[in-house]
Amino acid sequence: MARKIAAQRDEPSYRRAAMDGYAVLADDTSGASAQSPVALKLGDSMRRGVAVRVHTGSKVPDQANSVVMLEDVERLEDVIEIRTQVRPFENVYRRGEDVSRGDVIFTQGHELRPADIGLLAALEVDDVTVYRRPDVAIIPTGEELVEKAPAEGEVIETNALMNALLVEQWGACYRYRDIVSDERELIEAALLRDVDADLILTTGGTSVGIRDLVPEAVRKLGNLLVHGIAMSPAKPTALGLVNRTPIACLPGFPVACLVASYAFAKPAISRLAHIERTFELKMTGTLTSKIAGKPGSRTYARVAIRNGHVEPIIASGSGILSSMAKADGFLIIPENVDGYDQGQLVDVTPFD
Amino acid sequence: MARKIAAQRDEPSYRRAAMDGYAVLADDTSGASAQSPVALKLGDSMRRGVAVRVHTGSKVPDQANSVVMLEDVERLEDVIEIRTQVRPFENVYRRGEDVSRGDVIFTQGHELRPADIGLLAALEVDDVTVYRRPDVAIIPTGEELVEKAPAEGEVIETNALMNALLVEQWGACYRYRDIVSDERELIEAALLRDVDADLILTTGGTSVGIRDLVPEAVRKLGNLLVHGIAMSPAKPTALGLVNRTPIACLPGFPVACLVASYAFAKPAISRLAHIERTFELKMTGTLTSKIAGKPGSRTYARVAIRNGHVEPIIASGSGILSSMAKADGFLIIPENVDGYDQGQLVDVTPFD
Repeated sequence: MARKIAAQRDEPSYRRAAMDGYAVLADDTSGASAQSPVALKLGDSMRRGVAVRVHTGSKVPDQANSVVMLEDVERLEDVIEIRTQVRPFENVYRRGEDVSRGDVIFTQGHELRPADIGLLAALEVDDVTVYRRPDVAIIPTGEELVEKAPAEGEVIETNALMNALLVEQWGACYRYRDIVSDERELIEAALLRDVDADLILTTGGTSVGIRDLVPEAVRKLGNLLVHGIAMSPAKPTALGLVNRTPIACLPGFPVACLVASYAFAKPAISRLAHIERTFELKMTGTLTSKIAGKPGSRTYARVAIRNGHVEPIIASGSGILSSMAKADGFLIIPENVDGYDQGQLVDVTPFD
Repeated sequence: MARKIAAQRDEPSYRRAAMDGYAVLADDTSGASAQSPVALKLGDSMRRGVAVRVHTGSKVPDQANSVVMLEDVERLEDVIEIRTQVRPFENVYRRGEDVSRGDVIFTQGHELRPADIGLLAALEVDDVTVYRRPDVAIIPTGEELVEKAPAEGEVIETNALMNALLVEQWGACYRYRDIVSDERELIEAALLRDVDADLILTTGGTSVGIRDLVPEAVRKLGNLLVHGIAMSPAKPTALGLVNRTPIACLPGFPVACLVASYAFAKPAISRLAHIERTFELKMTGTLTSKIAGKPGSRTYARVAIRNGHVEPIIASGSGILSSMAKADGFLIIPENVDGYDQGQLVDVTPFD
């Protein structure tokens, strides 16, 4: 939400019965039990010695302070027999007990969930001001890429496709752009076309090499902040700005591309969307086999979760997309940790 | 997915260069270093002593078994000087290295995630058979309920609204039905109208009382399996079947209604959708204050998560919807546990 919300009225806005039954003065039920019921007169207006019929949701008369449940009462013409003692405010919601007028019910940055929308509906708040979804441009680069029907030497574009689906899952909308070949002018034109986006993601063309033109284009058009990050996979990732628009240049190897997206695009989108979640969900389990990190790098190992156990997915490289499909999440091995032993308890960051 | 998927071809379908560079026989680079480069002849067809230019994604000639990266090479007219030794299959994806033809890449019941869709696209699988989303009918009951503009004694319907949003979040679609008053015939008609749904959720009218007609309607029309569950809140929840359609009768107090929905509707939807997730995500933290469960009941305490600490939300009853809005999840206290102490490490089940 882009603005805090304060309640414009009390909820409940009147003293409300929580149960079907009879409004009474709690004092009048003193000592009531199945063995020695207390008799009260049935009436329409409340006073000492009188009970007034109420339904769930009904207004409880001001002079009454509790409700005896229907099942604890026997009715005999104009009198009821009460078989249980009630405490003051039992089965009654006091005015403002849920929310008082003026209470801040949501602060700025709160992410609206179903129960929150229920509370807004209960308080008759019909519209709220929210932040718009971040708009993410996704630009696949690489002259080997095709959309479909690859000939030998051609590769089907999947990196930008996967990022489009992830970005949507993370709460943003996306522009899934056409494939851009490895030509300096085309890459620059593609970046400039999307500087009005909230975030640009490029895929491919980030390694240090002759055809790896994307970070160079960022450097030329704006500000290349980082190129080469101590992580494995996804070392060739670059981060920069063009006209204040943040750009993450994701590597072309599919697994590296996904790792870089989880590491950089996901938190960027949360930030752009003003989502203020203060915790990350984890799954904890014991490792089924030893796993090593790359020395000096933060390693994102793919792992599966089976019956509370964490199984490393063995894959020979960051081009092996099936290693992601077999995995449930990342086991992140910090740069100052060699690895983890079989049987060790580890936290897994799920693919969410 | 409703059917397993086996790969119809190898991926890659040819020996593929992972880098820009030169295809070589690894043996030919033996001993190469910056100090003593190895010279190879540049050619178009591969044989011992020859290197062939390749790009990322290119076919590597069958006679070559590795690729020297462009940055490790100096080109001198028809000869290249190689400054680093490569191992067999370095910078090369072997045919079928990611996926081999016939490999089962997804089993029945697998939930498709972005990386999975990338793998399907890479393998040119254009359509897959999936289970349809479960269709959930949500029927609010209670003569005190109104959609909007409540007079004194009327309550805005929020339980079915919140369930509609939750059900969608859990992967189902919903029929959000009109409010049904507390009349036996109307409730029965509402249930019968929706027996073609995959699941029926009713809200309200479950306590043992004269106006609590919903479980009675289930008993009359079908099979009332359970009424009254050792949990807190949501004790009056009922479960049953009408014409084989499962029904969960959720209590009318908003918090109890939500707790019962998390406890019963969520797993029912996963089951109906054939989602085979084998793990639950948790957040672990230390309790900021002592918390007690209701003896003999499974207690769903609402807690907030702040900086890794778990804070119980104090609320006086299950009608207090603002307690859900302040909370991030449930701390579930099992029926055989009295409670937890301040400082104890506990697992929180998030509202997801």
